[in-house]
Amino acid sequence: MTAPSGNVVSPDISRRRRLVEENLLRFLTPEVCRIPEKLREAMEYSLTAGGKRIRPVVLLSAGGVVGGNEVDLLPFACALEYIHTYSLIHDDLPAMDDDDYRRGRPTCHKAFDEATAILAGDGLLTEAFRVMGDSPLTARDPGKAVRAIALLARASGAEGMVGGQMMDLSPGQSTGQSSRLDDLSGRLDAAASEVEEIHLRKTAALLSASSGMGGILGGGDESQVESLIRYGRALGLLFQVTDDILDETGSFEEMGKAVAKDRARGKLTYPAVFGMEATASMAESLSRESLSALSSFGESADALRDIVRIVTTRRS
Amino acid sequence: MTAPSGNVVSPDISRRRRLVEENLLRFLTPEVCRIPEKLREAMEYSLTAGGKRIRPVVLLSAGGVVGGNEVDLLPFACALEYIHTYSLIHDDLPAMDDDDYRRGRPTCHKAFDEATAILAGDGLLTEAFRVMGDSPLTARDPGKAVRAIALLARASGAEGMVGGQMMDLSPGQSTGQSSRLDDLSGRLDAAASEVEEIHLRKTAALLSASSGMGGILGGGDESQVESLIRYGRALGLLFQVTDDILDETGSFEEMGKAVAKDRARGKLTYPAVFGMEATASMAESLSRESLSALSSFGESADALRDIVRIVTTRRS
Repeated sequence: MTAPSGNVVSPDISRRRRLVEENLLRFLTPEVCRIPEKLREAMEYSLTAGGKRIRPVVLLSAGGVVGGNEVDLLPFACALEYIHTYSLIHDDLPAMDDDDYRRGRPTCHKAFDEATAILAGDGLLTEAFRVMGDSPLTARDPGKAVRAIALLARASGAEGMVGGQMMDLSPGQSTGQSSRLDDLSGRLDAAASEVEEIHLRKTAALLSASSGMGGILGGGDESQVESLIRYGRALGLLFQVTDDILDETGSFEEMGKAVAKDRARGKLTYPAVFGMEATASMAESLSRESLSALSSFGESADALRDIVRIVTTRRS
Repeated sequence: MTAPSGNVVSPDISRRRRLVEENLLRFLTPEVCRIPEKLREAMEYSLTAGGKRIRPVVLLSAGGVVGGNEVDLLPFACALEYIHTYSLIHDDLPAMDDDDYRRGRPTCHKAFDEATAILAGDGLLTEAFRVMGDSPLTARDPGKAVRAIALLARASGAEGMVGGQMMDLSPGQSTGQSSRLDDLSGRLDAAASEVEEIHLRKTAALLSASSGMGGILGGGDESQVESLIRYGRALGLLFQVTDDILDETGSFEEMGKAVAKDRARGKLTYPAVFGMEATASMAESLSRESLSALSSFGESADALRDIVRIVTTRRS
C-alpha cells in the first residue's frame, strides 16, 4: 500500500513497462514473420526509439483492475505500441509534419528513406492486427478479441487518430464554423471546439481504446469497461493539455522551437486558444475527471491513478 | 450450366461485382464513421476510381463454393477492396512509384495532396479492420472472423504485400544472392527466385487471402480452405504474369511507358527475367494449377473457374 507521491514510479508500472520493452520485437522475429531485411530494420529502429510505452502500460494496468492475465494481454499491448509508432513515423514524413528528429534520433525517413518509412508505418499498422488475430487469448476467447480489435480499429482509424491528424494538418476544414467567422467570440468558440476535437481524435481516442481494451480482454463487465474508457479519454486529453503546457514552459531550445513551428503552421494548441491560466485549470479538471472514473475500483486501480499523477507532474 | 467461353462474364461474377460496387461506401457513411470531410472525399475518390474488384469477387465466389451467405461475407469483401485501394494510393506516392495517373484519373496525391493521400491510405487500411471487426457475422461467429482477420493481416503486412512492395523498390536486398553475383547463371537464378518472391508477396498473398477468407467465413472445412488458398495463390501469380505480358504487348502508348519506367527503375518483371516465350508457358501452367486446385469442387466453383479464364484472356 505505497502512497503514490513524489516522482517515484510505482513498481507495477515499471514492471509492465519492462515487460513491454522485452516483448515488443518478439512478434516480428523471422520465425514469426518473414520480413524483408531493410523493412524489418526500419520497423525495429522506430519501435526501439524509446518512449514511455504509456498506451501498453495503460492496457496492462486496466486489465489488472478487472483481473486479467498479463501474459494474455501482452500481444494486444504490443499491438497498441505498433500503432502508436506507425503514427509517429507517418506524422514525421516531409509531406506531414516534416520532422528530422524525434527523441534526439533521426526520424525513420531520415535514418532510412521516405519510401521505407511509409512502408515501415504500413507494416507496423498491419502487423498490429496480425499480432492480435494470432494471440493465444484470441484463439481461446475470440468474442473478446474481436471486440478489442474493433475498438482499436475505430480509435486509430479515420474517425479517430488518422482523422485527428487530418484535421490538425488542415484546421477549419470540418467543424462547420464558417458561418460564425465574422465575430471574434464565434471564432474563439469554433477554435475551442476544434482544438478539443483534434485532441480527442489524435490522442484521447487511442488512450481510451487502451484502457477499454484492457477492460474487455481482462474480463470486465459492461460498466467496468465503460468506466475504464472514460478514464482513458480524460487521461488522453490531460496528456495533450500537459503536453501543450510543457511546450510553452519547457526549455526554450527544444520546446520553444516546436511551439514556434506549430504556430507557423497555424496548429491549434490549448494555450494558444484558451491562454495558459485556463489551460492549467483544464488540466486540473481533467485530472479529477480521470480519477473519478476510477472511483468504483479499489486498490487494484492504483497503477492507473499513478499514471494520472505521472502525466500531471512530468517534466518532459 | 452456361459453358464459360468467349468474353462473356458469368452472371454470378457480374452480380457479385455489382454487389461490391453498391456496398463499398456503405461502411464509411457519416452515420457509421465520423470522418473529417477532406479525408472522406479522398478515401471515396480512390475507392470509386474503378477497377475490376477481383479480390472481393474472389472472396464472395470462394464463399459460395462452400455454401456461405453473400450478405454475411460482404463486409469482408469490401475490407479487401479497402486494403487493395490503400496499397495503390501509397504505391503511387512520389517517394514510391511516383505515378500521376491511375486508370486515366489523377492519383490521390495529385487530386488532393501528399499528406491527404498518406492519411487516406492509412484510413482505408485501418477501416478495413474496423469493418470486419464490426460485422454481423463476426458478432455471431467470432472464431471464424478472427481466423479471417489474421489471415488477411498476414497477407497484407510486412510478410506479404507491404514486404513485396519493399522488395520491389529495393531489388536484391533480401534474397541472399550476393555470393553468386559473379556468374551470369547465378545472377539469373537469383533474379528468377526474386521476381517470384516479389509477386508472391505483392499480388498472390492478397489473392490467396481472398479465396481463403471466403472458404473460412463460408464454413469450409480445413481441406476445402486449403484448396481455395492454393487456387488464390496460383491465380495471383497468373494475374501478375499476364499483367507483365500485357505490359509488353499492350498498346505502345499506355503500356510501353509503364514498362520503360519499370526498366529504368530496374524493376523485375517475368518477361525481363525469363523472356516472353517462357513467360507465356508459365501463364499456361499457372492457369492449369489454379483450375486443378478446384478439382474437388463441382459446379459451385464455376465462378472461380471463370475468373481464371477472365484473367487469362483479358486485354487490359
